[in-house]
Amino acid sequence: MSKRMVVLGGDATGMSAASTALRHAGDGELEVVVLERGHYTSYSACGIPYWISGHVPDRDQLIARSPGEHREAGIDVRMRTEATAIDLEKRTVSVRGVDDGDTYELGFDELVIATGAVPTVPPLEGADAQGIFGVQSLEQGEEIVKDLADGDRRRAVVVGAGYIGVEMAEAMVVRGIETTVVEHAPEPFTQVDPDMGALIREAMEGMGITVITGTSADGFDVGEDGRVTAVRAGDTVLPADIVIMGLGVKPNAALAADAGLTIGPSGGIVTDVRMQAAPGVWAGGDCVEVRHRLSGAGVHIALGTHANKHGRIIGTNIAGGYGAFPGVIGTAISKVCDLEIGRSGLTEREAAAAGFGYVATSVESTTTAGYWPGAEMMTVKVLAEQRTGRLLGAQIVGRQGSGKRIDVFATAIWNGMTVEEMTFMDLSYAPPFSPVWDAVLVAARKAAKEVQGEIPASPV
Amino acid sequence: MSKRMVVLGGDATGMSAASTALRHAGDGELEVVVLERGHYTSYSACGIPYWISGHVPDRDQLIARSPGEHREAGIDVRMRTEATAIDLEKRTVSVRGVDDGDTYELGFDELVIATGAVPTVPPLEGADAQGIFGVQSLEQGEEIVKDLADGDRRRAVVVGAGYIGVEMAEAMVVRGIETTVVEHAPEPFTQVDPDMGALIREAMEGMGITVITGTSADGFDVGEDGRVTAVRAGDTVLPADIVIMGLGVKPNAALAADAGLTIGPSGGIVTDVRMQAAPGVWAGGDCVEVRHRLSGAGVHIALGTHANKHGRIIGTNIAGGYGAFPGVIGTAISKVCDLEIGRSGLTEREAAAAGFGYVATSVESTTTAGYWPGAEMMTVKVLAEQRTGRLLGAQIVGRQGSGKRIDVFATAIWNGMTVEEMTFMDLSYAPPFSPVWDAVLVAARKAAKEVQGEIPASPV
Repeated sequence: MSKRMVVLGGDATGMSAASTALRHAGDGELEVVVLERGHYTSYSACGIPYWISGHVPDRDQLIARSPGEHREAGIDVRMRTEATAIDLEKRTVSVRGVDDGDTYELGFDELVIATGAVPTVPPLEGADAQGIFGVQSLEQGEEIVKDLADGDRRRAVVVGAGYIGVEMAEAMVVRGIETTVVEHAPEPFTQVDPDMGALIREAMEGMGITVITGTSADGFDVGEDGRVTAVRAGDTVLPADIVIMGLGVKPNAALAADAGLTIGPSGGIVTDVRMQAAPGVWAGGDCVEVRHRLSGAGVHIALGTHANKHGRIIGTNIAGGYGAFPGVIGTAISKVCDLEIGRSGLTEREAAAAGFGYVATSVESTTTAGYWPGAEMMTVKVLAEQRTGRLLGAQIVGRQGSGKRIDVFATAIWNGMTVEEMTFMDLSYAPPFSPVWDAVLVAARKAAKEVQGEIPASPV
Repeated sequence: MSKRMVVLGGDATGMSAASTALRHAGDGELEVVVLERGHYTSYSACGIPYWISGHVPDRDQLIARSPGEHREAGIDVRMRTEATAIDLEKRTVSVRGVDDGDTYELGFDELVIATGAVPTVPPLEGADAQGIFGVQSLEQGEEIVKDLADGDRRRAVVVGAGYIGVEMAEAMVVRGIETTVVEHAPEPFTQVDPDMGALIREAMEGMGITVITGTSADGFDVGEDGRVTAVRAGDTVLPADIVIMGLGVKPNAALAADAGLTIGPSGGIVTDVRMQAAPGVWAGGDCVEVRHRLSGAGVHIALGTHANKHGRIIGTNIAGGYGAFPGVIGTAISKVCDLEIGRSGLTEREAAAAGFGYVATSVESTTTAGYWPGAEMMTVKVLAEQRTGRLLGAQIVGRQGSGKRIDVFATAIWNGMTVEEMTFMDLSYAPPFSPVWDAVLVAARKAAKEVQGEIPASPV
């Protein structure tokens, strides 16, 4: 007898869960229904800034699979359709058509909650003016692209200097728009430590971006036509033809909370390692919290790569297999023009908050042999636990070719390596690819010295 | 009372050992004498092909530190000076001036053997003709640069398609010279498996390089002027205005062997983990054999990165500290024009020779999100031990931006990870840097399926 899998949200986690489960289920064993509030399925939200910048010319390039393609694969995708309630007892979902308002009840055997995240929007005066945009959905991306095409937008203000903030700053600069970024923290990009953030500020300023820090956006000036004309930030008035809000996101977990599922301190739905929130109820992606392997804490990290993993794990489990999510270590990468930013593990603030005693060191290195014509500079910061020397975190800020080295640190953190163990690791070397001592090794060595002293003592 | 450290060989291992020891020794505690047969110290042999290609315009860019600079640091560097014998009983070295033939005895308290490697030169007819060059030393690099400047060299033949072979093929192509590579194995670049070598062949042919495999160079035709005119290879005569020999190297361990030090099956000097070959006698770099962490075998790997590590470890130990070399896993990287080649761990041949049962799988992926304008293709091959799934090796052949991912595999191999454990690792993702599933994860997942079956069984 066929069982019904109902999926709330048709993006990374939801569609990946649906596809994986259906692929592994026996013929006719599984009926899969996906409810998606928006107009699109399976698209790369992370790619939106690059569509706006023009790097990616066509919106459809961001769409991995359309509703029609999913239907051809046997998935009952219902677009512009949302769930308004979950009844865990009756095992039903209340469904509503976004456009027509029609409602009905839908029973499920397995439920996947993949409702994503919602943007953090402070209640600022004038925030509903025209010309102010978020960048969470493809629909919002479309609005920005249309708006930029519609008129002469000479000055952009980006509120928030995190991932979306810096990526949208790049997009604006690439489009030739005079760009100002406003960030309430002392340095941009609080996903790295302030000393690394200062390097990002310097580089962004070198690209012609005005970076205003230690200042919050307080409100917006609005013209008679209802369109934003400026961002007010402290004593400053920043004229703006367009405003991008990049203040981050929080889990969209209200439906799950109302149904009685456990919500963690991060605001995300709590699941077990198999991404199960209650018997037969699964949750993944931007609406859940996951375990940080270093701090042990539940954290909310909205990233497509985790969302896709969750979807595959959920689909595997629903199909009768075994999938378990091993947690996260906070790895991420971004760029502003040719400046690359990578991080993994804990920053100083995060390490201190988790209770770790640590040493922190930074080194400068080149991406290739110093004499190689394409050599670029990078700064690598490493945190190691005091006494044990266990690698707790790494941050990279550098030019082209530096950022992806963060994956080496990520793999080392994943395995609980000490910086001393890393010092003589067999990493690849040839002049076009790294100095004879790769930056990873140099940083590990300096951190090991901090932990153990300049010259390791003889044991004999 | 001062003790004397004598170093044989003034390149990576030797000078690094000398500098490290002197930096950490107390004032006046250590006298350091370095004997160097050639004209240069501390240069990047790996950079020579890129000087010849013109990527690196000036020879001196390859020299990290000149004899004069080392002397300023307090090291007694004796150039054009070689050791002809080591007496372990009397603790002396017999020294000879290369140019003047003067000889003397030099006592040592600590001896560092860093005599490097010598090229593999088969006894071929005509091999001493003009226009045939090795690429082991800066002196040889100089000869090539001079020879290319001296006359009209339209056709080059490179004998051997290993690291030096492919890098020199690139150098010749970049200089506009019609280039043929001759390799006795069925596919070029036997440091990777033949299926990956076939991809390299295809790419090299796409660059206009003629790749002849399954054929050995048998001898050389020599003109009346004493200069090479062709390479004879099987039934083929390959006209050549210049010939580059790239048949690899073997440890230069004769002096050590004559002194009674142990030589391993690889031909390299055997040391303990601290790089000590006998009490107070240390050896490192291209003249030693090192432990392979996967096979357990002693292997000879001539690479600047190991040589530098050995030097630092030896210097630390001589200064009274503790340094231990943790072994190698065969990580390496190279490129031919925009084709990047990375490897770590064991190839199929090496795994079989070590007695491992394994599964081997390959995947294709892109360096960035597929829709990113700079997306490049790569093939990633992974070997995992059967039943355990332990990662045994990885090979990457791809275009720009693919090769350095080998370090992620190297770190995973170093830590004994299984491919299953790697499947959900927290690696960095953003569209300009990788697909949402990085190639490393895709390759690991496919290998895990091979080990465990398509869908992991439920344990419940």
